[in-house]
Formats: sequence, structure tokens, C-alpha cells
Amino acid sequence: MPVLRTVKDYIRTIVDFPHEGILFRDVTTLFADPRGFRMAIDQMLHPYAGEQIDKVVGLEARGFILGGAIAHQLSLGFVPIRKKGKLPGAVISEDYQLEYGEAIVEIHDDAIQPGEKILLVDDLLATGGTAQAGIRLIERLGGEIMGCAFIVDLPELGGRQKLEAMGMDVHVLCEYEGA
Amino acid sequence: MPVLRTVKDYIRTIVDFPHEGILFRDVTTLFADPRGFRMAIDQMLHPYAGEQIDKVVGLEARGFILGGAIAHQLSLGFVPIRKKGKLPGAVISEDYQLEYGEAIVEIHDDAIQPGEKILLVDDLLATGGTAQAGIRLIERLGGEIMGCAFIVDLPELGGRQKLEAMGMDVHVLCEYEGA
Repeated sequence: MPVLRTVKDYIRTIVDFPHEGILFRDVTTLFADPRGFRMAIDQMLHPYAGEQIDKVVGLEARGFILGGAIAHQLSLGFVPIRKKGKLPGAVISEDYQLEYGEAIVEIHDDAIQPGEKILLVDDLLATGGTAQAGIRLIERLGGEIMGCAFIVDLPELGGRQKLEAMGMDVHVLCEYEGA
Repeated sequence: MPVLRTVKDYIRTIVDFPHEGILFRDVTTLFADPRGFRMAIDQMLHPYAGEQIDKVVGLEARGFILGGAIAHQLSLGFVPIRKKGKLPGAVISEDYQLEYGEAIVEIHDDAIQPGEKILLVDDLLATGGTAQAGIRLIERLGGEIMGCAFIVDLPELGGRQKLEAMGMDVHVLCEYEGA
């Protein structure tokens, strides 16, 4: 009988990426494995079975892989939140702090209709800066966020508390101690 | 009875993006619509029904949305081809010409095993430069490409001929005349 591995078993850790001292949790090995990818997508959706969701929003770029799969599984539309300058139509923007400097994310201003129920997805929750900016974009368009789903949480970086303080329901598949 | 629209009906054209004189074929309106997105993914897969495929490879970034959905539908793994410096593990690289200058794409060197049968996906086939670089990466790792699937082809830019000259089976859902 095959041994059922967990999602975490498929994630590898790369030392010193993108710079020295960082342990990078690399989900590409999870995505590349048929059992791993299937389990990750299915488990991200379990808390929302039976909930009404209208659209899936994913954060660039790994959130696109997950968001495309989840939207397709639910037969819903998918909306990307992208880095500044990538979306061709009229957008609204939000900035957020990085370790050094700041970054800007954008959404098409007609991508969500007021009252639509949204599932927000990304691969990893760290400080939560990108997710917070994404939540603000969705809420400015009148979207109602039913949940924020991630594969990995790094609890010591405090992202989950920040999102919960914004009233979000946060769902993660696994955690790693340390940054 | 609802009128069945085609994939092309959901695509909008943005004038002068990313710069003056370009008619940008914007698939985000297709992705955001539940019927549109469902039809696009299903139609991209029709030629491969009954074929053995081992992995789906998508080109950054819109190819991630499609590739995630297609890999999940087929219960396969997904492998990203990314712009230089984004992948954390050991990579191999290929460069290709842009209108001004050149760009580099990368794949993890352990993401494909020799003999694996690959479906390569992206949203749009224009000059074919990125797709050609992606094909070279996959073939350098020993992957056998079963097909290259796109939503949009711009035939006047000649990408399809270039890919077919490399022995590729190219599948597109719609075409636009003019660049």
C-alpha cells in the first residue's frame, strides 16, 4: 500500500535564497508532483465546501498556479492581482512595505462586482504585506472575502494575525517555525 | 436558452498597451468569467484526450493560471518556466530576442525527468520567442513535448511556423489578424 505523504513532505527548503540567511520554502517540488499538487489544491478547498464563492483571486506569481487550479475545480472565474504595470486595463493600486522600500500591486477596476464573494489564494503567508494589499484592493471594489487560503504559514512573521485583525478567515496547510 | 459565446467573445482588446500602436489581446476578461474560463481550459485539452501526458509546463505569468488549471484537471504535476532569478533551486537557462534587447527564462534542472511527456501552455503565441526558449529548456532536460497549447495566435507574427519548424504540434483556440 502506498504511503500517503503530507503536503509538507513535498516542499523543499533552499538555503540562502533569495539572500543569505533565508530558508526559502520552495513549493515548486510540491506543484511538480501529481499527488502533491492534487492534495494541495483539494486541501485548500476543504473549508469552503458548501460555501457560496463567486470568484477566485490569486496573487502574482505562484498564486496564479493555485488560483487557476482552484477556479477551474469550482467552475469559477479567476482574477489576478499583479505587480505594477502588468495589467493592460484600468486598475486600482495599493502599496505595501518590503524589507527595503515598497512595492505596488494592482487589480483591474472592473474585475470584481460589488457583493461578489471572493476566495483569495497564494502559496505562502509571511509578513502578510502582499495579502493585506490584495485584501484592500478586493474590498475597495466591493468584494466580500470569504477566506484567504495559503499552503505555507511562517507564524513567527505575524502575517496571520494581521489578516485576522482585518476580519479575515485564514486557512493554511502547514507551518514552518523560523523565518 | 442561453447563447453560447465563443472563447474569443470574452477576450477584450486594449489599444496602445504596453506601448503606442499595439492592440493588446487581454485574456483577463476571459479568465474572470466562469463560462469563459471553463471553456478555455476544456478546449485547450480536447486534442490531448486519450494521450499520455506526464507533466504540464506553463510560461510565466499568465501561463501559470492556465497550467495550474490544466494540471489539476488531468491530476498531473505542474512545472513553471520563469524569468531569470525567480526560481530558488539549481536551474538551466535559455535566452531569446525581444523587440529591444533580450530576455532569459529558466527551469529547475530537476523539474523534468528524461522521457517525460510534456504539455506546454501559455495564453498567447506572437513571435514565439518565449515558447521557443521554453521548448529548448524542456528538451535539454530530456522531456518529450506532446503539444504546445495557446488561447490566442497572432498568425502575422509567425510564431506558429517557428514552433512547427521545431517539430511541435501547436494548438490554438482563436486567431487575430494584425499584431
